[in-house]
Amino acid sequence: MNVILKPHTTLEEIKWVEGRLRELGVDVHVSVGKERAILGLVGETACLDDKKIAAWPHVERVIRIQEPFKRVHRLSHPEDRIIQVGDQQIGGKNITIMAGPCSVESHDQLFTIAKHVKQHGAHLLRGGAYKPRTSPYSFSGLKEEGLQLLAEAREEVGLPVVTEVTTPELVPIVSQYADVLQIGARNMQNYGLLQAVGKVDKPVLLKRGLSATIEELLLAAEYIVAEGNEKVILCERGIRTFETATRNTLDLSAVPVIKRYTSLPVIIDPSHAAGKRDLVIPLVRAAIAVGADGIIVEVHHHPEEAWSDGAQSLTLPMFDQMMEEAERVAQAVGRTLHATSMVR
Amino acid sequence: MNVILKPHTTLEEIKWVEGRLRELGVDVHVSVGKERAILGLVGETACLDDKKIAAWPHVERVIRIQEPFKRVHRLSHPEDRIIQVGDQQIGGKNITIMAGPCSVESHDQLFTIAKHVKQHGAHLLRGGAYKPRTSPYSFSGLKEEGLQLLAEAREEVGLPVVTEVTTPELVPIVSQYADVLQIGARNMQNYGLLQAVGKVDKPVLLKRGLSATIEELLLAAEYIVAEGNEKVILCERGIRTFETATRNTLDLSAVPVIKRYTSLPVIIDPSHAAGKRDLVIPLVRAAIAVGADGIIVEVHHHPEEAWSDGAQSLTLPMFDQMMEEAERVAQAVGRTLHATSMVR
Amino acid sequence: MNVILKPHTTLEEIKWVEGRLRELGVDVHVSVGKERAILGLVGETACLDDKKIAAWPHVERVIRIQEPFKRVHRLSHPEDRIIQVGDQQIGGKNITIMAGPCSVESHDQLFTIAKHVKQHGAHLLRGGAYKPRTSPYSFSGLKEEGLQLLAEAREEVGLPVVTEVTTPELVPIVSQYADVLQIGARNMQNYGLLQAVGKVDKPVLLKRGLSATIEELLLAAEYIVAEGNEKVILCERGIRTFETATRNTLDLSAVPVIKRYTSLPVIIDPSHAAGKRDLVIPLVRAAIAVGADGIIVEVHHHPEEAWSDGAQSLTLPMFDQMMEEAERVAQAVGRTLHATSMVR
Amino acid sequence: MNVILKPHTTLEEIKWVEGRLRELGVDVHVSVGKERAILGLVGETACLDDKKIAAWPHVERVIRIQEPFKRVHRLSHPEDRIIQVGDQQIGGKNITIMAGPCSVESHDQLFTIAKHVKQHGAHLLRGGAYKPRTSPYSFSGLKEEGLQLLAEAREEVGLPVVTEVTTPELVPIVSQYADVLQIGARNMQNYGLLQAVGKVDKPVLLKRGLSATIEELLLAAEYIVAEGNEKVILCERGIRTFETATRNTLDLSAVPVIKRYTSLPVIIDPSHAAGKRDLVIPLVRAAIAVGADGIIVEVHHHPEEAWSDGAQSLTLPMFDQMMEEAERVAQAVGRTLHATSMVR
Repeated sequence: MNVILKPHTTLEEIKWVEGRLRELGVDVHVSVGKERAILGLVGETACLDDKKIAAWPHVERVIRIQEPFKRVHRLSHPEDRIIQVGDQQIGGKNITIMAGPCSVESHDQLFTIAKHVKQHGAHLLRGGAYKPRTSPYSFSGLKEEGLQLLAEAREEVGLPVVTEVTTPELVPIVSQYADVLQIGARNMQNYGLLQAVGKVDKPVLLKRGLSATIEELLLAAEYIVAEGNEKVILCERGIRTFETATRNTLDLSAVPVIKRYTSLPVIIDPSHAAGKRDLVIPLVRAAIAVGADGIIVEVHHHPEEAWSDGAQSLTLPMFDQMMEEAERVAQAVGRTLHATSMVR
Repeated sequence: MNVILKPHTTLEEIKWVEGRLRELGVDVHVSVGKERAILGLVGETACLDDKKIAAWPHVERVIRIQEPFKRVHRLSHPEDRIIQVGDQQIGGKNITIMAGPCSVESHDQLFTIAKHVKQHGAHLLRGGAYKPRTSPYSFSGLKEEGLQLLAEAREEVGLPVVTEVTTPELVPIVSQYADVLQIGARNMQNYGLLQAVGKVDKPVLLKRGLSATIEELLLAAEYIVAEGNEKVILCERGIRTFETATRNTLDLSAVPVIKRYTSLPVIIDPSHAAGKRDLVIPLVRAAIAVGADGIIVEVHHHPEEAWSDGAQSLTLPMFDQMMEEAERVAQAVGRTLHATSMVR
Repeated sequence: MNVILKPHTTLEEIKWVEGRLRELGVDVHVSVGKERAILGLVGETACLDDKKIAAWPHVERVIRIQEPFKRVHRLSHPEDRIIQVGDQQIGGKNITIMAGPCSVESHDQLFTIAKHVKQHGAHLLRGGAYKPRTSPYSFSGLKEEGLQLLAEAREEVGLPVVTEVTTPELVPIVSQYADVLQIGARNMQNYGLLQAVGKVDKPVLLKRGLSATIEELLLAAEYIVAEGNEKVILCERGIRTFETATRNTLDLSAVPVIKRYTSLPVIIDPSHAAGKRDLVIPLVRAAIAVGADGIIVEVHHHPEEAWSDGAQSLTLPMFDQMMEEAERVAQAVGRTLHATSMVR
Repeated sequence: MNVILKPHTTLEEIKWVEGRLRELGVDVHVSVGKERAILGLVGETACLDDKKIAAWPHVERVIRIQEPFKRVHRLSHPEDRIIQVGDQQIGGKNITIMAGPCSVESHDQLFTIAKHVKQHGAHLLRGGAYKPRTSPYSFSGLKEEGLQLLAEAREEVGLPVVTEVTTPELVPIVSQYADVLQIGARNMQNYGLLQAVGKVDKPVLLKRGLSATIEELLLAAEYIVAEGNEKVILCERGIRTFETATRNTLDLSAVPVIKRYTSLPVIIDPSHAAGKRDLVIPLVRAAIAVGADGIIVEVHHHPEEAWSDGAQSLTLPMFDQMMEEAERVAQAVGRTLHATSMVR
């Protein structure tokens, strides 16, 4: 961390700031330039509050050099982490495909889609039981009935289930049914919720907020890991920009950037980013090519009847085509969708 | 609402879409152009789900013409709403000043600041007891002890209290102590929380999310009002843009835009937008000039010792200067900070 | 185009607006709803000025349905366009690789890099002779001497040359030396320059502006095509967002979106988007996977000595690795870097 | 400037980087931490190319501490600059109002508007003769005929003229007619144009680009000043964000931020930011309240007939109301629109 002082600070004032910094338990190197002094902090700076120091007298600004997250940092866990969900290992050579409807609507709907995606190679079943919606007048999910349907589908079809949890008090019930707990983009900084899933022994799929920086995403993961749960799967799902041709702008560069900073697996949600089903398959190919560890995608056998997100849901034949193209690209980058990843 | 069909749609297909739309209870006007047909919907379209229709076959896209919020729309309540908090009326001719520390830190800190801002004309005391923080290692508030201190300050100093509630299960306890419940920017789309404060008989201060559009802010307000609580105060506090010279970009144009769409009062938080105390007073002047109904501002007697947000907190003398300048601008635009607004 | 009228417009006023619209040579369908009337325009609306109509009395807003560009629209040229540059056909099954230094610095530098990239499969040589720079104190290119070196490199090495032209009066001289004229991101809306290259019989590589929408990019291409030059290659190179981990955010979704609207070829510049060489190869793979027709990439034999953009330039061995990985992904998506694309 | 080295750099490598930095003529302080070394540069760093150093081996990143512009920096000219245009002094206590049509359309149109705004207190006449337009099919100005009309209006009405110049070769002719040369937002980084107006002895009104940071705006001003022309007036006119309720987001915080870094005057263009005339007056009030030195505003006697930007043009009565409200706010902040600023 570097503390830049204001111009015209006196030597006494510099000493005063230096003293206060040393009280925080770090070593300080003072560099006095022509116009201003810079204090370089050495030591355990990851947990120092840079904004607090920025409010001190004589301080112009504070520049972080070390990343403010520690437990999710690759330095604390250099090799890529692999997260086991049912038979599937997320990370490593594997490309994991999570597929299913946006919302669980009915037994028929869920089972038709689940069977189809299982048969064509999906590894996890996705489906929303609790749906955060922008308008209070939109369908907001079947709630516990949806969870029960998901659990039944898991039993019958044989796919582990990933589903969203939207508020701390729902964590116990969703954990009872789900194999992976999803934190949606709108809740990425819902810290009570992050702490609640941090206390559960289930993998967490953490989606990047619409306007969250990569650093903020990793700090959100730090919240979960700090509570003891290290099984976090990160998910890029598009950020909000000025471009309106797509629902959001999928930030695929985030994949190699995140992998530099952390060994947690990273997957891509092309459906929410694009908002239109025609764009999903190209983005799936790109996601695998750029180095993502998996894909979470919306599929519906009758998208035109879907209760939510129909415009971006793949039809069943499109899903099959996606799987074929995904496998070809996976092989081109030395990975595969067809791993036998069973733990014995 | 306008439903644009894909090019080369046949007359039969147009009839099919028209029929489905009529089933939703709206009237449909069909316009067949050279390249494509457009179906204009007439009637109760505010609660139709445009995304669902966009997923239908033959549909290229759907364009909303009416705003998707109804209860907070100015059409449903044309005259400006005035919200009573203690002796102060928020809205109308009044400019309301809410001031206090970012976090409640101690009895001494809170009372020193509260007495000062009361003496210099503030109408409400702000102070955080539950603090959402980007890093899990930052100070996150005194919790219930903070609420108690706020309540004591209200009794002794005579200022109603506004404080943040961060999760649905805290709504009962925060409501017990606070006069106004604040929903922070990160929770603007925490729908469980919005519904919880919608069931309480207390005014709610709803902050715009960092990357929320004005329409989304008004839909969030609609969540609260739909539960029965019409006492919503909207707050613009800066949006996330590419500019890094300020913490966020304060969107002052939002004030006249919001007032066109709704009669709810709108206030400005210049502290969080700017991130630097030097910018706060100019932004307060601008906020009042543009038509805001009030200001919420961070003040600290020792900002360099503040446990959070010190860099953007006004010192006590700066607060006094702010009040003087604010009053001058208020008078220039036909308003005042010194209303006798008591209800009898 | 749809013209939405204000609430409470009278029948007479509607008739007046309808009459003025008919004077513009379009057919008008009037839809009178409960709250307001909507006028649907049918006919040649691509060249109507929607902003002008939006300023009429009684008009609330105007919604475009047809895209405002016509000559570059896919409807006017449905099959993918292929642009011949030397022996290479840009578009179709081919993936075209343009590689070279950011700036032409010297004979040695340019020839070393040019020979290397040619030998490893590049199809065009890139290199800047006129460099737009954010600071007036940065190196701004060797100017005509740079053009001459590029022309010599083309003769000796056998690669056609793409280089930037920054102002209309340089178009004649740059056209004399270059095979492809590049319009940089900062000049995407420099209309005098667009018109000048539109009058030349050379392919133009048009880069998307940092904050340009896809529609604006296509309108900029329309400027060139409207002057008679249909050989336009579009280039996505990252847009400006709030994320600072990368120099810009590469918008790979733009590739399938653009291809929906136009049959012009689209390439990707991963170097400028990423700003860091470590990110370039993953982004090249993703660009080919998503459907781009080529790549323009910065390469330097001593990036640490480069006069500009060294941090994002690939080293020579990295370029070779990029070519191998690119070919593997190209084959996975049914394309190739090794086409014999000679015209005979 | 701080140069952060990569982790695990050896002492020898640190020495090598230090040596190369010293060759650039700066002093270097080395700070060796637990994980990495940081080199602090002291001396004339404003003109060092940080991007070049970032490409060196062993370097992870470079952090600028001093601003990269020097001649426009307040440190090199601490007192606020005042720019004389005709009788009006721009800057100081004065609020300068520039008003007129978006485009010059005809003698009648221009004179009607010019007389009206002069009579009601405007200080400069604005009007476009060369209009950059997003679509090649929009009206692009009367060109030299427009300049002549502007010059006639100046003679007859007695207002100095500000008009846009769009390309270097037009600088001589526009300079012949105009009192202030305007550089539009799209041309803020058209460096050839900046250098051309930097060589002319006329004040330049430099608009911030749609997606330009404040630092980039000041670097663009540095281009002009570096050529010898110090009479630069900066103009904030809205930046591009995700919000679509306004054409752009007016960044009023930019005014106090810019004034911290430079002593050049800053004005606001509310018309282009808002895109709707109803928002203009509130934004004018806010602009003056926040500390701007003036306003440039579009006015038309028949906005519904305007050839461009009609929707955002004030009517004549609205302009009068604006002037009244502007004066009231100006007085509240210790300034005035009615200065006798004649030079004698």
